[in-house]
Amino acid sequence: MALSDRVKQIMSWYGSDTPGVRANLVRMLNHGNLAGTGKMVILPVDQGFEHGPVRSFQPNPEGYDPEYHVQLAIDAGCNAYAAPLGFLEFVADRYAGQIPLILKLNNSDTLAKVDQPCSAVTGSVRDAVRLGCTAIGYTIYPGSGQRNTMYQDLRQLILEAKDSGLPTVLWAYPRGAGLSKEGEQAVDVTAYAAQISAQLGAHVIKIKPPKDHIEQAEAKKVFEKYNISTKTLSDRVRHCVQSSFNGKRIVIFSGGEAKDTPALLDEVRELAKGGAFGSIMGRNAFQRPKAEAVKLLHDVMDIFRKA
Amino acid sequence: MALSDRVKQIMSWYGSDTPGVRANLVRMLNHGNLAGTGKMVILPVDQGFEHGPVRSFQPNPEGYDPEYHVQLAIDAGCNAYAAPLGFLEFVADRYAGQIPLILKLNNSDTLAKVDQPCSAVTGSVRDAVRLGCTAIGYTIYPGSGQRNTMYQDLRQLILEAKDSGLPTVLWAYPRGAGLSKEGEQAVDVTAYAAQISAQLGAHVIKIKPPKDHIEQAEAKKVFEKYNISTKTLSDRVRHCVQSSFNGKRIVIFSGGEAKDTPALLDEVRELAKGGAFGSIMGRNAFQRPKAEAVKLLHDVMDIFRKA
Amino acid sequence: MALSDRVKQIMSWYGSDTPGVRANLVRMLNHGNLAGTGKMVILPVDQGFEHGPVRSFQPNPEGYDPEYHVQLAIDAGCNAYAAPLGFLEFVADRYAGQIPLILKLNNSDTLAKVDQPCSAVTGSVRDAVRLGCTAIGYTIYPGSGQRNTMYQDLRQLILEAKDSGLPTVLWAYPRGAGLSKEGEQAVDVTAYAAQISAQLGAHVIKIKPPKDHIEQAEAKKVFEKYNISTKTLSDRVRHCVQSSFNGKRIVIFSGGEAKDTPALLDEVRELAKGGAFGSIMGRNAFQRPKAEAVKLLHDVMDIFRKA
Amino acid sequence: MALSDRVKQIMSWYGSDTPGVRANLVRMLNHGNLAGTGKMVILPVDQGFEHGPVRSFQPNPEGYDPEYHVQLAIDAGCNAYAAPLGFLEFVADRYAGQIPLILKLNNSDTLAKVDQPCSAVTGSVRDAVRLGCTAIGYTIYPGSGQRNTMYQDLRQLILEAKDSGLPTVLWAYPRGAGLSKEGEQAVDVTAYAAQISAQLGAHVIKIKPPKDHIEQAEAKKVFEKYNISTKTLSDRVRHCVQSSFNGKRIVIFSGGEAKDTPALLDEVRELAKGGAFGSIMGRNAFQRPKAEAVKLLHDVMDIFRKA
Amino acid sequence: MALSDRVKQIMSWYGSDTPGVRANLVRMLNHGNLAGTGKMVILPVDQGFEHGPVRSFQPNPEGYDPEYHVQLAIDAGCNAYAAPLGFLEFVADRYAGQIPLILKLNNSDTLAKVDQPCSAVTGSVRDAVRLGCTAIGYTIYPGSGQRNTMYQDLRQLILEAKDSGLPTVLWAYPRGAGLSKEGEQAVDVTAYAAQISAQLGAHVIKIKPPKDHIEQAEAKKVFEKYNISTKTLSDRVRHCVQSSFNGKRIVIFSGGEAKDTPALLDEVRELAKGGAFGSIMGRNAFQRPKAEAVKLLHDVMDIFRKA
Repeated sequence: MALSDRVKQIMSWYGSDTPGVRANLVRMLNHGNLAGTGKMVILPVDQGFEHGPVRSFQPNPEGYDPEYHVQLAIDAGCNAYAAPLGFLEFVADRYAGQIPLILKLNNSDTLAKVDQPCSAVTGSVRDAVRLGCTAIGYTIYPGSGQRNTMYQDLRQLILEAKDSGLPTVLWAYPRGAGLSKEGEQAVDVTAYAAQISAQLGAHVIKIKPPKDHIEQAEAKKVFEKYNISTKTLSDRVRHCVQSSFNGKRIVIFSGGEAKDTPALLDEVRELAKGGAFGSIMGRNAFQRPKAEAVKLLHDVMDIFRKA
Repeated sequence: MALSDRVKQIMSWYGSDTPGVRANLVRMLNHGNLAGTGKMVILPVDQGFEHGPVRSFQPNPEGYDPEYHVQLAIDAGCNAYAAPLGFLEFVADRYAGQIPLILKLNNSDTLAKVDQPCSAVTGSVRDAVRLGCTAIGYTIYPGSGQRNTMYQDLRQLILEAKDSGLPTVLWAYPRGAGLSKEGEQAVDVTAYAAQISAQLGAHVIKIKPPKDHIEQAEAKKVFEKYNISTKTLSDRVRHCVQSSFNGKRIVIFSGGEAKDTPALLDEVRELAKGGAFGSIMGRNAFQRPKAEAVKLLHDVMDIFRKA
Repeated sequence: MALSDRVKQIMSWYGSDTPGVRANLVRMLNHGNLAGTGKMVILPVDQGFEHGPVRSFQPNPEGYDPEYHVQLAIDAGCNAYAAPLGFLEFVADRYAGQIPLILKLNNSDTLAKVDQPCSAVTGSVRDAVRLGCTAIGYTIYPGSGQRNTMYQDLRQLILEAKDSGLPTVLWAYPRGAGLSKEGEQAVDVTAYAAQISAQLGAHVIKIKPPKDHIEQAEAKKVFEKYNISTKTLSDRVRHCVQSSFNGKRIVIFSGGEAKDTPALLDEVRELAKGGAFGSIMGRNAFQRPKAEAVKLLHDVMDIFRKA
Repeated sequence: MALSDRVKQIMSWYGSDTPGVRANLVRMLNHGNLAGTGKMVILPVDQGFEHGPVRSFQPNPEGYDPEYHVQLAIDAGCNAYAAPLGFLEFVADRYAGQIPLILKLNNSDTLAKVDQPCSAVTGSVRDAVRLGCTAIGYTIYPGSGQRNTMYQDLRQLILEAKDSGLPTVLWAYPRGAGLSKEGEQAVDVTAYAAQISAQLGAHVIKIKPPKDHIEQAEAKKVFEKYNISTKTLSDRVRHCVQSSFNGKRIVIFSGGEAKDTPALLDEVRELAKGGAFGSIMGRNAFQRPKAEAVKLLHDVMDIFRKA
Repeated sequence: MALSDRVKQIMSWYGSDTPGVRANLVRMLNHGNLAGTGKMVILPVDQGFEHGPVRSFQPNPEGYDPEYHVQLAIDAGCNAYAAPLGFLEFVADRYAGQIPLILKLNNSDTLAKVDQPCSAVTGSVRDAVRLGCTAIGYTIYPGSGQRNTMYQDLRQLILEAKDSGLPTVLWAYPRGAGLSKEGEQAVDVTAYAAQISAQLGAHVIKIKPPKDHIEQAEAKKVFEKYNISTKTLSDRVRHCVQSSFNGKRIVIFSGGEAKDTPALLDEVRELAKGGAFGSIMGRNAFQRPKAEAVKLLHDVMDIFRKA
C-alpha cells in the first residue's frame, strides 16, 4: 500500500530510525480500518496480568480465551494488538501476518503491596522477534521511586529493539510516592510524562486522558501566567500533544475504566478534537459482547477518521 | 508412540514453540501410565531442601536416598520426576532415558526468617541440558515484595530453556506481605497466579487446590455479580482452569500436606471433576511405604484417566 | 580549518587521548562564531525532561518543537548543541554535519521525591555513535548518597566513549543529603566538583557560577589561612578554573535561571574575567524570542572572544 | 594408584560428573595417609582472614608464614590443603603437584558488624585453575537473610568449576538472624544444612559437630515421634550423614575451637563411629608445635582408618 | 639492571605470578634512588579527589597542576607515582617510560555523608594498560558494611590486572560502623587489614602507622597472653609486617597528616626499624616547596636504604 501524504508526513518525524524500524511503524499506520489516515486504534489485553482474570474476563467470558482477543482486533480492523508474552505466544503461529502484534515487555500484578511501583520485565526483544511482532510495548511509572530502574531497563530494551527493527510503544502512567492520587492524571503531570516518553526515544506514546488538575506548584504558575486553558478535555489533550515534540510524536490515549457507550464516544470526540492520534481501548472493548465491541471500535475509528 | 487425539489437541495450544520444546512436552505427555491421555501425574521431591530432611524423609527413611524417589516414580508410572540439582545429579547417569526429569531451578529453605519470600536460583538451564532433563521447573511467589526478582530471573531462564528445547513447569505459590495467610490459597488469588504463570510463558502450571475464600475486594464484587460458584473444590478448580487461557494450558494441582488415603482420593476426584490436567504429589507418595505409594499413585491415575 | 595557537595549546593538555577523541574535541573548538578562540558557547536543551515541558517551553512556544533548538544553535553560531536522546533523534538525520551534537546520556525528572538524587541513564554510547554525535554528556551529583552509582556508570560510559572516539562533557551539580541548600553552589564545593570531574576523565567540565559561601569547615580554614578571595564572581571562577588542573581542562559555566539581559551579560563578563572557557546557556536563550536569543548569544560570544 | 573398592563405591555416587571432576575427586581420596580408605583429613587455613592474624598464628608463630601450613599438610599426610587466594598463591608454584590444593573462594572477616552475615567472594574459578588446584571451597550461611546471595553466587561458581573439572567442597555454617545462637549447631539445623549443601551440588560437605539441641519446632515433633536418638555425638553425626543423601555424599566435620588432645580425639572417635568421612582440622593442628600437630593428625587419621 | 640479591629474594615470594606481573613488580623495585634495595618510596596524589583541591594544593599552589607531581616524583627519585585517572591521563603521554605509574582505580570524596563508606570505582584495568601503567592501585575499608562490595570489585579488578600483567598496590584503611574512631588505627586492626590484603592477592600493601591501641577484645587477650609489645611504633610495625605473610609481602606505610620534618623523619626511622619496606608519602611531600620536598624524600630514602 502506497503511503498517504499524512503517513509520509508522520514518517518524516522518524528520520533517524533505520528502514527496519520505519517499516514496522508504517505497518501499524497502514493496517486496519484507519490505514493511511495517520490515526491508530489499538486493542491491548494485559488486564489478565494487571488486574487478574476474573475482573478482566468474567463480564464477557469468551475473553478467557487468548484467541478471542486477537480475532476481535482483526474483526474490528484495529491497527495492532498488544499483549504480554503468554497471550501472544498462544496466537502468534496461527495469526502470523494477519495483524501487527505488540509484545508488552513488562507487567505488574495487584497481589503485592508496594509504595514505589515497578513493573517486572516479563518478556524480551528476542521473544518479540521470535513471535513476529511489529513493535515492543513497555510501561513506565514516572513519580515512582523505582522510575530509574524502569527508565534504564527501557533504555536497554529500546536499544535492542532498534537493533532488531522494532519500534517502541510506551505506556506512560504517572504514579508512586512522588504524586498525589489526583496528580496521577493531572494535566501537567500527563504532559510531562509524554515529554519524558518522547525524550526516552519512544515512537508511540500512550497516556491517560488528563484531568483538570495541576499537580506541580511550579507548573501551576506557568499555566496561570500564560493562560493555558485546561477546562475541556480537548484543551488538555492539545497541551499533551504539544508537549510531545509539538505534535510530532504519535500520542494515543487509553479509554480507562469501563463506561457506557455514549460517555465513551463523547470522550473520544474530545480526544480527537484535541489532536490525539488515536485510542488504545481494552476493557471497554473486550468486556462487551463481540458484536457490540466491533461496533464501538468502528464508531471510535470513524470519529478519528473524520477528525 | 503416535499422538492421541487429545495430545494432538493439547499440542495445538503450543504452536509457537519450537519442535524441540514441543518434543519434550510430548515426551512428558506420552510417558508412564497416563501416556496419551493428556493427563499428568508428576512426582516432585524438593522437600529435603524446602522443609528439611528429617521432616521429609523420616516417615519413610528409604527416602533419605535419592535413588528411592526416581525408582518410585518409574515403578508408579509417573509422567515425570522433579527435583533440585543434587537429587537429579545423583541419578541422572544411571536413569538416563528411563523417565522424564524436571530440574527445579530455584529453591527455598526454612532456616531464615524473611517477610518477603524469594527462592534462590540453585540450578541453571545448562545443568538441565547436561543432565538430560526434559523440562525446567521454577517457583514464583506472587504476593511477595520480591516477586519482580523472581519473575525476571524466570524470564531469563525461560528464554534460555526455550533456546535449549526445554519447556517450563511453573510452581505458582502466592505468599508474602501482600496477602493474608488465608489469602494464599484463596480461589481468586490462585486463579490469578495461574493467569500470571500462563502470561509469563509457562507450559505447565502447578497450583494448590484453591479454598473457598476470596481475598481481593475488587475480585469479590465480580464473583458476586456474576454468581460464580466457589462452594465445591471442583467449582473452584474449574475457575482456575478457565483462568489459565480458558483451559488451554496444562494446569496440575499439588496434594499439599500429608493426609489419609480416602481424603486424598476424594480431593483428587474433585480436581478431576473440575478439569484438572493432573496432580503433582510428593509427601503423600514418598512418605508412605513403597507398595502403598505405588498403589495410591495408580488410584490417582485411574481417577484422572476416567475423568 | 588549521588550528590556532590557542587551540593547539588546549589540545596539548589532552595528549593521552586517541586521535579520534582529539578530533572531536577540535570539532567543537573549531565550530561556530568562537571557532579557533579556545572558547565555547553551547546550547543545552534538556529542560523538557528535567523541569517539564510547560515550564521550559511555554515562555516561547516555538520551543515545544525539537527542530527549533538545533536551528537556534546553528543560527547563533554555537560550538555545539546538547540534548537527550529524543530531541537528538528528531533532528540528527536532517542536521547531520551541521553542528556538533552532544548526547546527554542521563537525565532526571521532578515527578518523584528522593533524598539522594540520581539521574537515570537514558541513552547509550552506541546511540551517540549512531546519531553522529561529537561527544557524550553526563551529569553527576556530588553530595548525593547515590554518587557512587553515578560515578561508576560514568566510568563505564566514558571508557566506551573513548573507544568510540567521543570526548565527554560532564555536568557537575553538587546536591543531595551531604550538602546544605546553600552549599550546592558554595565556592569550595563547586571547585571540588570540578576537580572530581577532571579526575574522572572528563574533557569538558560544566559547573554553576559559584556563590560567596564556603560549605566545608576544613576548606574554610584553608581559604582563610591563605587569604583566597571569594568576594567577586570572577575571584570564585578563577579558583574553580585553578581547581580544574590549574586551568588545563576546559571549564564552562551554566547560566542558571532565566534573568534579564543586562544582569546576564554582567555575569558573563565576570565569568570571562575569571578565566572561564565559556558558557552553556539554555533557558536564557530558548525562552526568549529567536532574534533576541541570537543577539544575546552573540553578545555572550563577544565577551568571551575579547577575554 | 588403582582404586580401592571403597573408593570405587564412593565414586559410583558421582556418576553424573565429568571424568575431569571425578579425576580430581579421586586425587583427593587417593592422596596422603588415608589414600584409598575413602576417608579424608584436610588442613584448612583461612583463620588469618576469618579471625585475624594474631588470634590465629601467635600461639605458634611459625604459622604467620604461609609456607608453614602447606608443609604441615604434606608432612602429616593430609588429603588436601585449603586456603584463601593469598596463601595459595604464595605456595602454588613451589608445591605444585605435591598435595591437592583447595582454593577457598569466599571469606569473611570480623571487623564489620552485620546482622545478616555473608562472606565476600575473594577468588575465582580461574584463579583455582591458574594455581593448579584440585577443588574449590566455598562457605554458605544457611539462616542468614543473605543466604540467597551466597547460594546464587555458589551456583555460578559451581557451574564454572564443573566446566573446569573441579569438584566443590562446601563449608555449611548455619548462622544469621533466622537462628538462635544455640541453634547454629543444633542437630536438626546441621543436618538440614548438609542436605541443602548436597542439593546445591557440593561434592564434599563440611559441617560442625552437631550439639544435642533441636531448633525448629516442626523438626522437634518428628524427632520425638520417631524416637531419633540425639544423645551421643555419634548418634547426631549418624543423622547428619543420613541426611546427606543417605550417606552417599562425602561429609566431613570441623574440629571447632582449640581444645586439649584427649578431648579432641574423643570427639573424633565419636565422629568416626557415627559414620563421618573425616575431619577438617585447622586451629587444633597449626596452633600446636609442628611435631605435636603431625602426631595429632596421624592419630586422627588412625581413628578414621580403623572406623 | 640486574637483580640484587634482595630483589631476587623478594621476587621469590611472588613465584605464582606470570612473568608479566613479575616484570612490572621488578620495574618498581628497580626504579629511582632505592632501586635494588628492596625498599620503596612512592608519591601518591589522590588528595584532590579525596579531600578537595583547596585543602590539598593551596599550601603549595604549584600542586594544582598535574604535571607538578609526576615531575616531583621523578626529581626525587621515587619508585613510582600513583594517582587517579584524570591526573595520570594528563601526563601519561609526555612522561611515558620515565617513572612507573600506578592508576588508583577507586576513589572517595568528602561531599556526601555516609555511615558505611565505600570508594567509587573510577577507573579500569583497560585504562591502566592504555596509559602504560606499571600497577593498579585500589582502596579497601575493612570495618565498613560495604566491605564485601569493595572486596568483590577488587577480586574482579585484580584478576583482570593479572591477565594484563599488572600487579596490585592495595590501600587498606579500616573504617566504618564496625570500628571505633580510635580503632581505625589500632595495631590489631591494622595488622588484620594487612593480612586481609595479602589474602586478597595484593602484591604491595599500604597501611597506616599503627597506634598503641587494641580494638578487638579477642585480640587483646592474645596480645596479653603472649606479651606482644605494642609500646613503640617499631614494635607495632613489626607485628604488622609479620602479619603480612611473615614479612614476605611488600608492606609500606603512609605518612598521614602533614607534620614538621623532624617528627616525620622520626616516624620514618621507627617504620624502618620495624621492618617496613618503605613509605608512601603524599601531602608531606607535595605541600612543601619543591626543593624542600625533594630533600625530605631523599632523607626518607636514606633512612630506608640504611635500614
